[in-house]
Amino acid sequence: MVIPLSDTLFLPDAICGFSECAAQATRLAAALRVPYAPVDIHAFPDGESRVRVKAPGRHVALYRTLDHPNAKLIEVILAASALRDQGAARLTLIAPYLPYMRQDIAFHPGEAVSQKAIGQMLSGAFDRFVAVDPHLHRTSNLSVVFGGKPSLALTGASAIVAHLMTLKPAPETVVIGPDEESETLTRAVALPLGLNWTLAKKERHGDRDVRIAIPPDVDVAGRPVIIVDDVISSGATITTIARIIRDKGSRSIDVYATHALCDDQAMEAMADAGVDRLISCDGVPHRSNGISLTDVIVSGLRISP
Amino acid sequence: MVIPLSDTLFLPDAICGFSECAAQATRLAAALRVPYAPVDIHAFPDGESRVRVKAPGRHVALYRTLDHPNAKLIEVILAASALRDQGAARLTLIAPYLPYMRQDIAFHPGEAVSQKAIGQMLSGAFDRFVAVDPHLHRTSNLSVVFGGKPSLALTGASAIVAHLMTLKPAPETVVIGPDEESETLTRAVALPLGLNWTLAKKERHGDRDVRIAIPPDVDVAGRPVIIVDDVISSGATITTIARIIRDKGSRSIDVYATHALCDDQAMEAMADAGVDRLISCDGVPHRSNGISLTDVIVSGLRISP
Repeated sequence: MVIPLSDTLFLPDAICGFSECAAQATRLAAALRVPYAPVDIHAFPDGESRVRVKAPGRHVALYRTLDHPNAKLIEVILAASALRDQGAARLTLIAPYLPYMRQDIAFHPGEAVSQKAIGQMLSGAFDRFVAVDPHLHRTSNLSVVFGGKPSLALTGASAIVAHLMTLKPAPETVVIGPDEESETLTRAVALPLGLNWTLAKKERHGDRDVRIAIPPDVDVAGRPVIIVDDVISSGATITTIARIIRDKGSRSIDVYATHALCDDQAMEAMADAGVDRLISCDGVPHRSNGISLTDVIVSGLRISP
Repeated sequence: MVIPLSDTLFLPDAICGFSECAAQATRLAAALRVPYAPVDIHAFPDGESRVRVKAPGRHVALYRTLDHPNAKLIEVILAASALRDQGAARLTLIAPYLPYMRQDIAFHPGEAVSQKAIGQMLSGAFDRFVAVDPHLHRTSNLSVVFGGKPSLALTGASAIVAHLMTLKPAPETVVIGPDEESETLTRAVALPLGLNWTLAKKERHGDRDVRIAIPPDVDVAGRPVIIVDDVISSGATITTIARIIRDKGSRSIDVYATHALCDDQAMEAMADAGVDRLISCDGVPHRSNGISLTDVIVSGLRISP
């Protein structure tokens, strides 16, 4: 018996993408051998967006990474509506970077739990969700964010590992995750490469005020260090940790990130702190992109139940 | 029997407002004699918004006008979620300017019907909706936009009339609406003042390319003209019509608008075209604001069924 591809749970029969991530979205469509259609955005002078897209299939995956998310979220909601109007029976949102995931409780009285609010908003428009290393802390499962709808939380770890394999890191390299939340990703990068790994301890005092300590028994003197993180935003964490590692006499510091959101100033601050290279996956378009997520997403879509 | 205020359909027992329209929202709270609480927004470096608000009542009206709407819409969704978490049993959105109302059909294949998409999104978060002169064209009723939820479409006409009454316009003044869609507002301004009125004929060829004709039998030579419109956005319509009226020898041209969204450049273009004054209602904060909508909104909330 031949099961048509479109009957599997996540595998779409078409991809639509927004212009700023058209390279990634078309690469994904090519790898899946499905048609691609661009989402056209026109910005009206009054700040509204006109969204136009032709549905190229019945199960359409809309690809848009949602860094700097507010306007993008509205346009994604509009695109979903246009695709439904054209008869798209199943809509998957592929958002390699999923925003508003950190705030899963009210840290201060009166704060919006944005993970819940944005999750509800998106689950009103889509049937399936795919993200890469979404920052779920207390929430066990991505599906919980989207009202129980089937959701796929992929990881960039295997793509980072594949990239590092080709570089053959020295066996004395130490892999460091910046905090306890990064344990899964840090292990997933270090173990297949047979490298030692450890976690720093992070205390956040503000958006850009982060204090960090490295376990005292970790010896980085004269050794290459690889820092691994899911999201680099202000860069404050990486800058702080790199300075400590450099002061302990590391031989080199390379940073690997699933998602790089940092601006040029943050890139400079990291370089000043001793970071030799920052290499990120291409879910968020960024000048540090060096690792494609296409294989990760294709495998995820193919093997999903 | 005394019916508590909070039992009536729209009348809230508290108002929350965002900083850019705090003056209007606090004035409304004072007129209704209900508590006011500000919504606090913190912009994270990565473009996300943290929204914080203390619910000051059980039926909270969230006041935010939604010009340049994309980021504001997301923050309004987040604020609604925070208020629900604090037990707000009924949430009313007071958005004097309601965006995305024009696109009520797909004008070109594949276009998102944004009125429907944004209406659905907001109706997932609020129970009641209040707007002033929402630009409903083919949609008969504001409630249709919000999935049948009780919705109040107020008009700025009475506030504009009250303002004009104090100015005692000359009886030979002609009131002109820029297109057929503006007939209701134009009549509602002209009739109580006993002034002649007419409508121009508008053809739109692009965001800023609008062609207009005035009925040939309308005599404006030597007479004051008042142009009335619900929304002034790019200002192209007003600029075009003012030029025609000036060329026909009008004595003066004043423009009254419910909502002014236009930038300084558009204001200058209108002045160059012969507009003496632009006076707008204060639903959208703008330097042309000269007419308060507080009474309109208070009356609407009080007399709603």
